[in-house]
Amino acid sequence: MSHIKRPKTKRGRQTFQALLHAAEHQFYKLGYHGATIKDITTEANVGLGTFYIYFHDKKSCYQYLLLSYSHLIRSQIAKRIENVENRQEAERLGLLEFLEIVRDNQSIYHIIWESLYIDKELFVDYYSSFAENYAKNISKNQNETGYRDYDPEVMAYVLMGISNFIGLRYTLFSKSDDLEEVVDEVLKILENGIFK
Amino acid sequence: MSHIKRPKTKRGRQTFQALLHAAEHQFYKLGYHGATIKDITTEANVGLGTFYIYFHDKKSCYQYLLLSYSHLIRSQIAKRIENVENRQEAERLGLLEFLEIVRDNQSIYHIIWESLYIDKELFVDYYSSFAENYAKNISKNQNETGYRDYDPEVMAYVLMGISNFIGLRYTLFSKSDDLEEVVDEVLKILENGIFK
Repeated sequence: MSHIKRPKTKRGRQTFQALLHAAEHQFYKLGYHGATIKDITTEANVGLGTFYIYFHDKKSCYQYLLLSYSHLIRSQIAKRIENVENRQEAERLGLLEFLEIVRDNQSIYHIIWESLYIDKELFVDYYSSFAENYAKNISKNQNETGYRDYDPEVMAYVLMGISNFIGLRYTLFSKSDDLEEVVDEVLKILENGIFK
Repeated sequence: MSHIKRPKTKRGRQTFQALLHAAEHQFYKLGYHGATIKDITTEANVGLGTFYIYFHDKKSCYQYLLLSYSHLIRSQIAKRIENVENRQEAERLGLLEFLEIVRDNQSIYHIIWESLYIDKELFVDYYSSFAENYAKNISKNQNETGYRDYDPEVMAYVLMGISNFIGLRYTLFSKSDDLEEVVDEVLKILENGIFK
């Protein structure tokens, strides 16, 4: 992210956050191509030039947003599972945290998947880097009390696919009242498989 | 699909197919909003008016394309698994067929997921109707030799999520030489779960 200049003062950080928040909202509302830098600065209540203090262009602002989602999801999950006793509990709480995040931030899917249309490499990078981390963690826990010894990368994509599609159904298509119940049902599948 | 008029003659069917094929290519290349009806008819080598013989507008052509993907995927999988002996084999061959289809039709993900940006209802309908069918089939096979008795809808989204994300990784991000090997690895997870 060489096209980003991070703020150094408290006031700068507030402006930076206001710009990001406005960008998120405008990209969601008008789409990446439809939203202009002017739309973003108007919503953030700053002059057009202020945008360029922090971002080289619209794309670098969008990239920063993608990166911040990735950090948000990873750090929130890490925090939620830091004291778990086993991998079952880690997967259960990790999935629940993910679902709560996408339920409470309805623009996340929209903005992440739009990368496929803006620059396919951004989309590939987003999921590849997420999967790489996940696979590393799986690999580290393929021991007596952890995961089975299947290909960690396949496992990572299987688990990401499950989270994303369960998230689509129960947080985007319609909101489930009881995400815990959905997560428990998924965990049964992860524990026992799908066949009798 | 009341905004579609299907062709009745052999020649009409050829023209209709040429238009669909051109639409698929133009939507992939220029995006739905970027591609014009003129681009489509030019590629299909027919006059602009010919488009309107079959389609009410660009959106109805796009919707027909979505529907045709859904039919293609379902009918190819149904054909591939019609003589299987158990559900393990049905899931194995069904996943393999799906991966081969998306590998050989690189525009499928691109065009289906763009529906989220064109009209969210199209995206929701696409996956909801796919899931409904899948869940019905799971439900029917929740017997002694079939699937476990977990919520069929949760199971459908779990399996669709797995297919889609494994498809992203091994057919879109980079093409795997050996899809059978990937599928075998996924089947181990579906048979035994992920935990030791």
